[in-house]
Amino acid sequence: MAQAAEWVAVDWGTSNVRAWGIAADGSTAFAVGSDKGMGKLQRTEFPGVLGELIGEKVDGSVDVVICGMAGARQGWLEAPYLDTPADLRRLSHGAVKPEGAERRFAVRILPGVAQRAAGSEDVMRGEETQLLGLLGLRPGFAGTAILPGTHSKWAEIADGRIVRFSSAMTGEIYEVLSQHSVLRHSFAGERNGAESEAGLTAGLEAGIAEPQLVTSFVFRTRSAALLSGKGADWCSAYLSGLLIGAEVAGHRDWLGRGAVPLIGSERLSKIYAAALERLGAQSYAIDAADATIAGLKEARAQ
Amino acid sequence: MAQAAEWVAVDWGTSNVRAWGIAADGSTAFAVGSDKGMGKLQRTEFPGVLGELIGEKVDGSVDVVICGMAGARQGWLEAPYLDTPADLRRLSHGAVKPEGAERRFAVRILPGVAQRAAGSEDVMRGEETQLLGLLGLRPGFAGTAILPGTHSKWAEIADGRIVRFSSAMTGEIYEVLSQHSVLRHSFAGERNGAESEAGLTAGLEAGIAEPQLVTSFVFRTRSAALLSGKGADWCSAYLSGLLIGAEVAGHRDWLGRGAVPLIGSERLSKIYAAALERLGAQSYAIDAADATIAGLKEARAQ
Repeated sequence: MAQAAEWVAVDWGTSNVRAWGIAADGSTAFAVGSDKGMGKLQRTEFPGVLGELIGEKVDGSVDVVICGMAGARQGWLEAPYLDTPADLRRLSHGAVKPEGAERRFAVRILPGVAQRAAGSEDVMRGEETQLLGLLGLRPGFAGTAILPGTHSKWAEIADGRIVRFSSAMTGEIYEVLSQHSVLRHSFAGERNGAESEAGLTAGLEAGIAEPQLVTSFVFRTRSAALLSGKGADWCSAYLSGLLIGAEVAGHRDWLGRGAVPLIGSERLSKIYAAALERLGAQSYAIDAADATIAGLKEARAQ
Repeated sequence: MAQAAEWVAVDWGTSNVRAWGIAADGSTAFAVGSDKGMGKLQRTEFPGVLGELIGEKVDGSVDVVICGMAGARQGWLEAPYLDTPADLRRLSHGAVKPEGAERRFAVRILPGVAQRAAGSEDVMRGEETQLLGLLGLRPGFAGTAILPGTHSKWAEIADGRIVRFSSAMTGEIYEVLSQHSVLRHSFAGERNGAESEAGLTAGLEAGIAEPQLVTSFVFRTRSAALLSGKGADWCSAYLSGLLIGAEVAGHRDWLGRGAVPLIGSERLSKIYAAALERLGAQSYAIDAADATIAGLKEARAQ
């Protein structure tokens, strides 16, 4: 039988919420989740959703440490951003304590991080916790870390701080172009995976060679379908490789000599690793959930 | 009273169709249009739409010269692409004669142009006619021309030919991001135009300085709204300036010493002119409809 959860780690994003019960020895006692992300909830609904999610999974009083969009202005309770350079060793000092949850839950919501310099404004909520997790998993890490996703983040870490960071809308641009632009016609056909590798390679090469032409090269998804009969597999992989290649090459000067941690899904991390390799950079993958749990654990211990 | 139309010039795009009756002296006898673009029509519906549009406007037999998506595979009748280097002086030789129209209409649909080299596949339908119009309006033109729009085109013209061209999805990327991405929240507020100029300048500067980071800088639309309280005016103008600035800077090596013709709407051409000026390039505007009519006139005379 699984051990009892001593506390609960929660990643509350825009679209989904996930919670892990963590036992005294650090192992995962349970993992639950639902699609009740911040974007679908009124402020007053958060306590109920939390109760449904973990109420029957835990006994007695527990700490509940939350990261992500639950701390946004439209979330449960706003946790004001820490500003860069943001000291991750003090992340929990910026946490807020929302009201309304069952008394036996000691709930804290961690802050996000903001970069306020004019012309470089940027925000993150959730990724800062994964970066703190990186410091837990790889003590003393310094350098650039990449968190691939809907809104990818590049972060430069030094001395336990997020010195600077840069978001790229790579994942969301892929989604809106493939669903809402003229390119959608190129994604409609049959898929068998046969041309995926060729499309990915062509996209990566184009994006890495000339990232400054990415808004032009996206149209090739359509042209190659019209002129060379490329199918949905090729087009989808080309667009993905192109956008990732351009993101990576555009951030080329963020890369140092050390291997780059990629914190994200296995599928995406593989493509980023291939792009980085073409630029001569080594990388290693860290599962996004592992980083989140490690970060919430570090924060709780602060 | 207006002169009688000797022939009819038609620009049949995906979303709209426009027709101009042209008198013997070259003046415009009438101008009509509707939203019955190629994208909304079955093949068999084109003759009826043409009849509704011009039937009562012309007397007797007339030439009808059409450019644009009516010649696409999904249009009235496919007019196979001319390949680059495409000789615009022979554009009409690639025209096709569709069936079904009233007998008194001698209908021709002009071809588009394709660039087939692997890795540079690209297509245009309609812009080739505007480029032919440019050669009619500016005889002997050679150099790069820009056609700003939903899918902007950059074309290098030499000796009456389209030597090479490059599409950029600038206009459509603006549309899908502002309507379907997380950025849409930044476009929802009140608009009074007060911050448009500042937003446009900030966007142009960012896109021109680092076009390779355009997929990152788009996210600043959201960050600047969250962190600096930028409103819908600023965000909308920033995104537009950013995408145009990145397109222009990405094509920097297409610019020679000569002034660049901008064939498009007055509003867009002004922004492109500002971007070009920042790169030290002069430009002049040609109204898109003027170029289309001039091109159809040249084609008819070929």
